[in-house]
Amino acid sequence: MESSDTYPSHAFCDADRRAVYQAITTRRDVRSEFLPQAVPEALLARLLMAAHHAPSVGFMQPWNFLVVRSDAVKQKVHAAFKVANEEAKALFPDRQRDLYSSLKLQGILDAPINLAITCDRSRSGPVVLGRTHMPSMDLYSSVCAVQNLWLAARAEGLGVGWVSIFHETALQDALGIPAEIVPIAYLCIGYVSHFDTQPALEKAGWLPRLPVEELVFQDRWGHLNGAQNQELLEHLRALQASGTISDMPLPAAPQ
Amino acid sequence: MESSDTYPSHAFCDADRRAVYQAITTRRDVRSEFLPQAVPEALLARLLMAAHHAPSVGFMQPWNFLVVRSDAVKQKVHAAFKVANEEAKALFPDRQRDLYSSLKLQGILDAPINLAITCDRSRSGPVVLGRTHMPSMDLYSSVCAVQNLWLAARAEGLGVGWVSIFHETALQDALGIPAEIVPIAYLCIGYVSHFDTQPALEKAGWLPRLPVEELVFQDRWGHLNGAQNQELLEHLRALQASGTISDMPLPAAPQ
Repeated sequence: MESSDTYPSHAFCDADRRAVYQAITTRRDVRSEFLPQAVPEALLARLLMAAHHAPSVGFMQPWNFLVVRSDAVKQKVHAAFKVANEEAKALFPDRQRDLYSSLKLQGILDAPINLAITCDRSRSGPVVLGRTHMPSMDLYSSVCAVQNLWLAARAEGLGVGWVSIFHETALQDALGIPAEIVPIAYLCIGYVSHFDTQPALEKAGWLPRLPVEELVFQDRWGHLNGAQNQELLEHLRALQASGTISDMPLPAAPQ
Repeated sequence: MESSDTYPSHAFCDADRRAVYQAITTRRDVRSEFLPQAVPEALLARLLMAAHHAPSVGFMQPWNFLVVRSDAVKQKVHAAFKVANEEAKALFPDRQRDLYSSLKLQGILDAPINLAITCDRSRSGPVVLGRTHMPSMDLYSSVCAVQNLWLAARAEGLGVGWVSIFHETALQDALGIPAEIVPIAYLCIGYVSHFDTQPALEKAGWLPRLPVEELVFQDRWGHLNGAQNQELLEHLRALQASGTISDMPLPAAPQ
């Protein structure tokens, strides 16, 4: 896997690095493209294992994986989404409300597998290495598990959609999740007709992709300058213009 | 990239799926193994672009990337770590305190690049699609950016360590980050002497890796049963025993 002959480092070979970037750039939040075909259990197991290999603060591994297969349970979750989505619509200014209403924001009933990923904040006791000063770190660990699963799913040809338009307590009620367990993500998972080339909200004109070079500072918030950062920004502009991260030369060997 | 001849789906080919799983399973939180060699700017640009391709709630892309190159700034951040780490030590019970004290928990001064990834909660206005009912979703988007970068770094042969032992305000002060911008992750990035085969805290005997099959429920919290879940759990046990996700057969084609 590591190209030790051609590159004196622990870097993956060219093709393998490209595969990782391909998963990252072609991953989509899928709402409309789910197919009804069953997801093989062996494949679902790989996705859960990818999630289980996420980093976690103090190695506490605070996640659980609640696999939803039952139509009756999906119906309850969908009902909770509908309530929250009606409330959400009313919050948007007029110019956005029609567009919001036209968007399909979930595939709860279409996706053969739904999956709740949670965070058990008491998993390894009250004091957690690395969480002593940043109390949200355990929640962030479960988010990393979501992202691992999402990228693995893309590589396996499965779409994933993250639905967040719920009252937390309604989602807990629908799934029997205790009050002290935090639902992090409710995911819809299944095979798809296709992966869009753009994120759905970019394609719909909701918001544009931001120029990445405008988001980068050096050494201090708001500070853009520095000769090395200028070189970095040029590379970023070139990558953003190309629309891909994959077509890259092997990096220069470390000096 | 997609193996359309052999597999009627959008799955990556075998080698490419293996590369994605390899990044996921061999990624480590690096503290002690950093080398001083410079990170090429073109490579750093790819990592930032990987982060910029993270999912974000309502496509708000709430992240900024503050690249820290200055030794003086790293010293300030390191001082903030030392204060918090002394406080953290005192919180652990006796049986854990000695082990805690023996662990190296950061490579701030060793890593050539430090990087703060933040969340600007006001990035796209007060009402954000998908954040209306789960207000932490924007923070989670920035966490997904961290995990994308971390996996890309592993593929590029770079180690990443996430340091979270800071008072939030001390980190903001050291980097000039405004009070309303949330620091999500402070990362140390550089080439490494090696990647450990196990997570550092597992290797040190801090906590064991949990059996993944004990973390999986079906349809309702606490509910383990169901014939399909039995099959899933068997696959999970086999994967966990093998210690890898990579040596997998191609999944059966969808029915």
